[in-house]
Amino acid sequence: MTFAAKILKPRHGRLDLRAGRVELSHGSGGRAMAQLIAEVFQPALGNAFLAQGNDQAILPPAGGRLAMTTDGYVVSPLFFPGGDIGSLAVHGTVNDLAMAGATPLYLTASFIIEEGFPLADLVRIAVSMGRAARAAGVPVVTGDTKVVERGKADGVFISTAGVGVVPAGLDLSGDRARPGDAVILSGSIGDHGVAIMSCRENLKFDTEVRSDSAPLHGLVAAMVAAAAPHLRLMRDPTRGGLAATLNEIAQQSGVGFAVDEARILVKPQVAAACELLGLDPLFVANEGKLLAVVEPAGVDAVLGAMRAHPFGRDAAHIGTVVKDEHRFVQMTTAFGGGRIVDWLAGEQLPRIC
Amino acid sequence: MTFAAKILKPRHGRLDLRAGRVELSHGSGGRAMAQLIAEVFQPALGNAFLAQGNDQAILPPAGGRLAMTTDGYVVSPLFFPGGDIGSLAVHGTVNDLAMAGATPLYLTASFIIEEGFPLADLVRIAVSMGRAARAAGVPVVTGDTKVVERGKADGVFISTAGVGVVPAGLDLSGDRARPGDAVILSGSIGDHGVAIMSCRENLKFDTEVRSDSAPLHGLVAAMVAAAAPHLRLMRDPTRGGLAATLNEIAQQSGVGFAVDEARILVKPQVAAACELLGLDPLFVANEGKLLAVVEPAGVDAVLGAMRAHPFGRDAAHIGTVVKDEHRFVQMTTAFGGGRIVDWLAGEQLPRIC
Repeated sequence: MTFAAKILKPRHGRLDLRAGRVELSHGSGGRAMAQLIAEVFQPALGNAFLAQGNDQAILPPAGGRLAMTTDGYVVSPLFFPGGDIGSLAVHGTVNDLAMAGATPLYLTASFIIEEGFPLADLVRIAVSMGRAARAAGVPVVTGDTKVVERGKADGVFISTAGVGVVPAGLDLSGDRARPGDAVILSGSIGDHGVAIMSCRENLKFDTEVRSDSAPLHGLVAAMVAAAAPHLRLMRDPTRGGLAATLNEIAQQSGVGFAVDEARILVKPQVAAACELLGLDPLFVANEGKLLAVVEPAGVDAVLGAMRAHPFGRDAAHIGTVVKDEHRFVQMTTAFGGGRIVDWLAGEQLPRIC
Repeated sequence: MTFAAKILKPRHGRLDLRAGRVELSHGSGGRAMAQLIAEVFQPALGNAFLAQGNDQAILPPAGGRLAMTTDGYVVSPLFFPGGDIGSLAVHGTVNDLAMAGATPLYLTASFIIEEGFPLADLVRIAVSMGRAARAAGVPVVTGDTKVVERGKADGVFISTAGVGVVPAGLDLSGDRARPGDAVILSGSIGDHGVAIMSCRENLKFDTEVRSDSAPLHGLVAAMVAAAAPHLRLMRDPTRGGLAATLNEIAQQSGVGFAVDEARILVKPQVAAACELLGLDPLFVANEGKLLAVVEPAGVDAVLGAMRAHPFGRDAAHIGTVVKDEHRFVQMTTAFGGGRIVDWLAGEQLPRIC
């Protein structure tokens, strides 16, 4: 049963969206759930598909290979500079589709809510989710709400799934990196993770660190238009950061990487916060960046397209795929030395997304 | 980032799947997460799509209108007679697609796990989910794992989403019931909710009450093959039970219902448990039953097709759609009297699915 099913009007009064709280009955399938959906989710997320009012959304034929993904969001705190769990859930799922070169079409949203959660916060999250979905042009077509007892969850968890369609002829995959390919990064790293950690530690900086949470499908579309035949793969370095992403691709493709630390952009305030928190920005999560592996012949076209897009202005060619049976990620440091970037670190940052 | 991405082999020892527990690092995007996925989820859920190893699954074109749905599962206890949260998550999402007459194609699974959860239980859930998915012929093509701190969740929550394709010409929707249509129920009611409540209350009966959790797309396909032009709508009476489902349809279609209690099958042990627990089976959740609204001309064909299917053997014509501006669900009781079946009750059963 999805929340699209609950389109009837409740009979008794309206919810107190300023001071009210979520109750167990709001997840029961009865009239209280209908009211929560009618007064919170429908106004925030409403679109023609959601309004069908059945336990599933019926959508036009997609015409092409489908891409499908899912992600759970348990970020703490729920609200942070640059976003919240609602917008993050939209961006994260849109981005996982975009990394296959897919055009994201539809999202679903499953809310698991702790009893007693303030309705005002739920409205804020739903409104933010709806705004992010509209801005991305990817509607939330169906959803579900469950409520668990106080102390059995932590505010709100959201799981989103997404469906997209892959343009004909495009085949991006983590196993396609080849020695000699270029590694391109769309911008600065560490912003999201540091924004979250700064919230938790209540750190104040002269310049606030904001999450980079953003939908990347427009940037990807520009890259595909500019140089589709030269694109090997794309991936967004979320949990585990750039280090985990490079190591994953190294394993999948059976290659190594040689990257140049001096070409990896870290904003000064992010670098300062990382120093204070004992974090290495290479291992810190991003939510609005992508890494692309590109044939040498396509580098200029890809970089040109990226730098012309608001989310790729700082795109840089940070390194090269190398032949390496050990599948190491090697980095030339800013001081001219070298190190192996493993991905063991970064496990100390739970609930970053 | 989805768990499809984590295909590499971990370097250090194997997980202790008998006595080990889930740790925060298993949700971090690092090597521990890779190990959890490689040793728990891949063996249980593995299929060619999941093995692609990217942050999304790429799937063949679907060729037709898409159906899309999602559901969160927070059932407590996680294991119950007749199923567990893993099989329930497969069946519930398959059924929400099937209720549109759609052929379910693919599932996604998002796991939110509490730190300290026994690995043995996680394996049991994943294996059950994989078995249910294979039995239904609907693979879990991509997934995600998050871990939250001890006390911030309750064991495991699962959110599934599903995509299916709707046969050409078929248009089932909750607003299509018309006065004179027949109401058909596929079998007994109350089994799932009573199985869960009996577990919680530690009730013992001579005959164990088992959940009816089952995938209904095969039954639906048989009904569509037998009488597609006569089918108005289908719905599975989950949370809120048969009472909520009838009231929802009454609201959506602007009609009333007249149903006959004597024709609604309630197993003796379910009736006995309901009496003991103070529940009305009309309001208790089902997870393997469907209600169909059918044009009178199609009733015999639909009933014939249903009774020939293992999940529709006890199908019965339980009532009629009537003209009623009040949109009431009226029931002739077994004693010959009458009552209005509202849907206010049933809000006292949290976490039934």
